[in-house]
Amino acid sequence: MIKAATLKGFRDFLPADALARQFVVQTITQVFQKFGFDPLETPALEYEETLLGKYGSEADKLLYLFKDNGGRKVGMRYDQTVPLSRVIAQYQNDIPLPFKRYQIQPVWRAENTQKGRYREFLQCDIDTVGSQSPLADAEIIDCTLTICRTFGLPAPVIDLNDRTIFDTAGVSKQEIIILDKLEKIGTDEVIAQLKTSGRVKPAELIDTLKKTKPTERLWKIIEALKRLGYKENVDFHFNPFLARGLDYYTSTIFELKVPAYSGGSLAGGGRYDKLIGSFTGKDIPAVGVAFGFDRLVDALGELKLLETLTTATQVLVTIFSSETLGWSLELAGTLRKNNIPTQLYLDEDAKLEKQLKYADRKGIPYVVIAGPDEVSKKIIKLKNMRAKEQQELSVDALVDKLTKDS
Amino acid sequence: MIKAATLKGFRDFLPADALARQFVVQTITQVFQKFGFDPLETPALEYEETLLGKYGSEADKLLYLFKDNGGRKVGMRYDQTVPLSRVIAQYQNDIPLPFKRYQIQPVWRAENTQKGRYREFLQCDIDTVGSQSPLADAEIIDCTLTICRTFGLPAPVIDLNDRTIFDTAGVSKQEIIILDKLEKIGTDEVIAQLKTSGRVKPAELIDTLKKTKPTERLWKIIEALKRLGYKENVDFHFNPFLARGLDYYTSTIFELKVPAYSGGSLAGGGRYDKLIGSFTGKDIPAVGVAFGFDRLVDALGELKLLETLTTATQVLVTIFSSETLGWSLELAGTLRKNNIPTQLYLDEDAKLEKQLKYADRKGIPYVVIAGPDEVSKKIIKLKNMRAKEQQELSVDALVDKLTKDS
Repeated sequence: MIKAATLKGFRDFLPADALARQFVVQTITQVFQKFGFDPLETPALEYEETLLGKYGSEADKLLYLFKDNGGRKVGMRYDQTVPLSRVIAQYQNDIPLPFKRYQIQPVWRAENTQKGRYREFLQCDIDTVGSQSPLADAEIIDCTLTICRTFGLPAPVIDLNDRTIFDTAGVSKQEIIILDKLEKIGTDEVIAQLKTSGRVKPAELIDTLKKTKPTERLWKIIEALKRLGYKENVDFHFNPFLARGLDYYTSTIFELKVPAYSGGSLAGGGRYDKLIGSFTGKDIPAVGVAFGFDRLVDALGELKLLETLTTATQVLVTIFSSETLGWSLELAGTLRKNNIPTQLYLDEDAKLEKQLKYADRKGIPYVVIAGPDEVSKKIIKLKNMRAKEQQELSVDALVDKLTKDS
Repeated sequence: MIKAATLKGFRDFLPADALARQFVVQTITQVFQKFGFDPLETPALEYEETLLGKYGSEADKLLYLFKDNGGRKVGMRYDQTVPLSRVIAQYQNDIPLPFKRYQIQPVWRAENTQKGRYREFLQCDIDTVGSQSPLADAEIIDCTLTICRTFGLPAPVIDLNDRTIFDTAGVSKQEIIILDKLEKIGTDEVIAQLKTSGRVKPAELIDTLKKTKPTERLWKIIEALKRLGYKENVDFHFNPFLARGLDYYTSTIFELKVPAYSGGSLAGGGRYDKLIGSFTGKDIPAVGVAFGFDRLVDALGELKLLETLTTATQVLVTIFSSETLGWSLELAGTLRKNNIPTQLYLDEDAKLEKQLKYADRKGIPYVVIAGPDEVSKKIIKLKNMRAKEQQELSVDALVDKLTKDS
């Protein structure tokens, strides 16, 4: 006998979870399309060369790399931004710019597993490629906030910064990584770490950053967001300490937070005007955001914004006996033709009690019962499993009732 | 500069293809749910032990196996039936039986690539676990045919057989694989190959099979299908030579064909009452079908049953000048709040001609134009890019028109 187990950091999603995730994906997709983004899908495997060196050396260690049966060095999708960049280079003549695409696929990272951190997780990205306009940045942020509002997430706020502020202030890459931890570890610890890493006057650096004004690009983004009805320091907020981990950002960076949720940032993104150039040879500007799908689902659950269903099935058609089996078959067929999610009980010899218990355990809200009497009169008994009520209906009335109820 | 390339047998789906695939997945999902199947998702990676030896030795060679960073022997999802079997064993107490699930995820097979054969492809499966009833088999076939009818595929037909017929006739596993090729290579070649593989009177074997009657299980399936309105030898057809490749089938097997489509079988499935037992230690009966998603999309395209869109965006809002930018931003916001997929042109300095050309290249059906005159009068010009017509509208009338048009 083979041990049935999932790999550490990997998850199965049984119907209740899978249905909730499906609902979240569909809602996000609708908002993405509303903002004019079109879908893109890329393969799970890429040449190792496509992936290595794009994310920074720390991230490279988290790649799933291996040799395929043909000896090719390959790796599993680590994010969706690098594959997008490859796609832009590969189909330059077929893709009119600006190219606005969304992508919702799993990515794989060999992380140390801990609460809320997985080795396989879904990413939901939008990116606009081929526009340098701050309008593109503002639109991505608008779309991010719209997703929050669509789900009813309370008081979402965007932290906004520009990487060039660090360049101007002479902050090194290593120091950016330390600054990024400010919120987590506090000012004193950041100052200590900056000192250790060689900064002579770390407190002064922090003061300089505190007094920094938004860049011209940030002003334009802020202006557009205001015009769209968003309020500064309510819906978005300039934060000169925001750093973000990834190597490839070149100017605008931002993160989404929902203070009522305890699990950290729900989305993050920014502008990366140099990454695509590593595939095309000439720079093509781009800006985007990635939603942490699991955190989003988690936040929606924590804040009670997600309806939980254990099944999409609305009604179970029971079988009274082998004599009425054909009738039950036909009834299930009729309900299905009317787009009502229907299960037929799959055992003609089971007692009614057993059939009702099955509906109860599955969480199916309605059960149809019909014995020879009902069949001859062409009516059915409909049992509402939650209200524990029962009523007699014609088949037409049943279809009507379940259609309205769905 | 890094070469931008996809691995052999792997594909990118740009928006037009991705939109078509999305439509097909959504349609299939709706039918699956109508038949009472609920979603399940399993990880891309499984322990090697979970995968090896389940599909037959030929198939094992096609597995993507490797060692992860922790030295674990892992493999990529090869189908969705083995992961389902693992799930059933792993969550025995949480899953009431019968368990009806659908699963739509990519699988990976290191196949020799050829026309229409890929190393990464989407599978769409339904399976009913925990029922031995022929009703479960009939329901899977009903759902398969319903999917064809929903898409408008002409004259779909199910080839139906029972593996136990081969046992009764004393046909070996090796001989089953030869018989499976009957349609492809013809009777003479099958007889020749059977002879080579050691069968003394191969023609007699073929005669025996030709005269075979359906098993009791098949009779019951046929009876249920008839009751559901399907016609024998029109919608389904008993074929005692149908073999199917996979090792794990135990009785019912079937394949879906659409004669008008040149690319072969669109779906196949059957009953596998022993597979889950290799994880649980006790047999749990199961039956299911897998749709070849790529073939289905291909068939729908070939038979002109798929609308092709290059974008989901319905309207482009142009920007007349930096003076009217704020107005264009607000208009795009209004359209999006009304659920109309909208793009805002992302460059306030671009000439109108360039903006119209962009809409044309993208295939966006409508363009909104508004100069200072229109803005002051609170009207817009709506250009229909296909009909090359233009009309003046208030913003409310624009929302109305585009809502009705979508």
